[in-house]
Amino acid sequence: MSTPTLLLLPGDGIGPEVFAEVLKLIDWLARHRGLDVTTRDGLVGGACYDRHGVALTDETLAEAMEADAVLLGAVGGPKYDNVPREVRPEAGLLRLRKEMDLFANLRPALTFKALLDASTLKPEVIEGLDILIVRELTGGVYFGRPRGMQTFEGEERCVDTQAYSQAEVERVARVAFDLAAKRGHKVHSVEKANVMETGAFWRRVVSGLHAANPEFSAIELQHMYADNCAMQLVRNPKQFDVIVTDNLFGDLLSDCAAMLTGSLGMLPSASLGAPDASGRRRAMYEPVHGSAPDIAGQGKANPLAMLLSFGMALRYSLDRGADADLLDKAVENVLAAGIRTGDIAGPGATVVSTSGMGDAVLAEL
Amino acid sequence: MSTPTLLLLPGDGIGPEVFAEVLKLIDWLARHRGLDVTTRDGLVGGACYDRHGVALTDETLAEAMEADAVLLGAVGGPKYDNVPREVRPEAGLLRLRKEMDLFANLRPALTFKALLDASTLKPEVIEGLDILIVRELTGGVYFGRPRGMQTFEGEERCVDTQAYSQAEVERVARVAFDLAAKRGHKVHSVEKANVMETGAFWRRVVSGLHAANPEFSAIELQHMYADNCAMQLVRNPKQFDVIVTDNLFGDLLSDCAAMLTGSLGMLPSASLGAPDASGRRRAMYEPVHGSAPDIAGQGKANPLAMLLSFGMALRYSLDRGADADLLDKAVENVLAAGIRTGDIAGPGATVVSTSGMGDAVLAEL
Ligand SMILES: CC(C)[C@H](C(=O)O)[C@@H](O)C(=O)O
Ligand SMILES: CC(C)[C@H](C(=O)O)[C@@H](O)C(=O)O
Repeated sequence: MSTPTLLLLPGDGIGPEVFAEVLKLIDWLARHRGLDVTTRDGLVGGACYDRHGVALTDETLAEAMEADAVLLGAVGGPKYDNVPREVRPEAGLLRLRKEMDLFANLRPALTFKALLDASTLKPEVIEGLDILIVRELTGGVYFGRPRGMQTFEGEERCVDTQAYSQAEVERVARVAFDLAAKRGHKVHSVEKANVMETGAFWRRVVSGLHAANPEFSAIELQHMYADNCAMQLVRNPKQFDVIVTDNLFGDLLSDCAAMLTGSLGMLPSASLGAPDASGRRRAMYEPVHGSAPDIAGQGKANPLAMLLSFGMALRYSLDRGADADLLDKAVENVLAAGIRTGDIAGPGATVVSTSGMGDAVLAEL
Repeated sequence: MSTPTLLLLPGDGIGPEVFAEVLKLIDWLARHRGLDVTTRDGLVGGACYDRHGVALTDETLAEAMEADAVLLGAVGGPKYDNVPREVRPEAGLLRLRKEMDLFANLRPALTFKALLDASTLKPEVIEGLDILIVRELTGGVYFGRPRGMQTFEGEERCVDTQAYSQAEVERVARVAFDLAAKRGHKVHSVEKANVMETGAFWRRVVSGLHAANPEFSAIELQHMYADNCAMQLVRNPKQFDVIVTDNLFGDLLSDCAAMLTGSLGMLPSASLGAPDASGRRRAMYEPVHGSAPDIAGQGKANPLAMLLSFGMALRYSLDRGADADLLDKAVENVLAAGIRTGDIAGPGATVVSTSGMGDAVLAEL
């Protein structure tokens, strides 16, 4: 196997700050654990728009298509509020997802024992919480056409189109079942089948896939309406193992679930494509949190979600599970020692800066 | 003014049970406070389907169009899971909303001091919470066409259409601004302008309406992405006063907000049409909770949301604010006395049945 390549896209807001800590980690792993990767840097989002007038250049996209993994910080900020949609920071992220065909977005929402108190929920409701949301990422209302202003039956209106094909639903549901088989053996498939045609379609396709595949028979499949899921996440989040849902519901529900944990600054995510003949999948790793323009540039951001996103890359794209384990353990120890960035600080904690946290993790390694 | 008419639609699940308590209340108000209303009964949802094969008959719809207010219990249940969509219980509710043109759905999410502990959130996060969600109810992806299976650019797919006209957005935004003027003077307008065309359109129209109307200048308008709103509801719900949003986001966010309070069985809602020349609005009142098939028929349901929904009807459709005040006070006293249905019972509470709770409210009156 030739040296794997990693495309680094820090992006906007706190993205570059948390990225700096990943670079330190890569360097440490290269020196002490023989990690051998070629890294390339690129611009995405507002950072790219400022330089090139678009949120992603064709060159960077081409590098992303070739890379073994893409690491992304965050995109967006109020500075770009009035920029045309096609070149907005978000457009760069959406183009990467779509062109790389990263249809399965894995968003874990889990609590860290040392951080239970950071949640607005009562500790007993979230202690031991471990949900994996599998969000469809390249279809639905994010990409469906037609979209925009149109005249329909004589009336002027603005539209978006929520669209799914059977193949699109099946491939993401398959990912959810496969993951559930390695976890709690339970999948909640979430839609609005009582109101939306695509909801009823989604339900039918997921049920059909489940029924047609004997290897999924050990997985319990439950259907749930999206509004009820939003409620149940607040009422009793521990009832969930894997949740599979469409692009838009996944956007809201994964953010809601992430916030339940109180550890938004801790949560990584992975976006995966289909495996090719050699089993290689295109992949992008990014923290669940956004660009947080309000604290950008102040050294306050929590780099752990970004470090753990790199950990996911180590595990899933670079075949370096042992390094990922080591990283997980180091993060755990740092938290156990009471070291915290401001977002997760409680009484008695030692509050450190972004780079202070990165250093603490390296010291622990 | 002729005697106002009230159309009573108990519906499915716990609907009829909680309705029985409203009937007792109407009777009490007629005998002791001179309430003079003509009531009619009708079927909706599964109850109507069982009898007529449709979820709402034309006759009942005609009565709803004429009524001064419609009171609805709840619709739906697993029994109807495999019934064709056009005649599903939900179709009856959607048809009422659409034909009566009830475009503004008011969903308060507020906490009752006596019930703070029923929430999964920490008491300090929700104490004094008082959010009003104004959900657009007759447009968006719930009703947009085309919908269903289609071939698009050679590919077979299922679609729903999210569609809004300028007039649809303006009229619901106006309701939100008007309500905020009587409350905390703050409106959050919620969409996904960073991803959806209708989101950007919604934002533009709401901003335009706000800017063009000097009477709204005292209202602070903030725009927020729907995923962030889902997060912020969990992180710090008290930052909100009025939230205005589309049909689908309103469905999820209002359920999430309702669950934050821990008092889902306490929350009423009103759906309003446009005022006619005489200032009369079509209106439907219903609890936020659903048909709760799991506890239906067991006398366990909490009737307070239904009673308080009738209270909203007294206030907004029947011009009997004093009766509504009396009812609010009675509910407060009952709670203060520690009387609870199972859903809101805490340690030391006196747990009563559905009718026990109704009786307690009457006794308090
Ligand atoms: C930045 C934005 C386009 C994006 C989305 O809506 O998908 C973000 O909210 C996310 O969840 O990754
Ligand atoms: C029953 C269903 C059709 C309805 C909706 O989705 O609007 C319900 O969830 C609600 O919020 O009133």
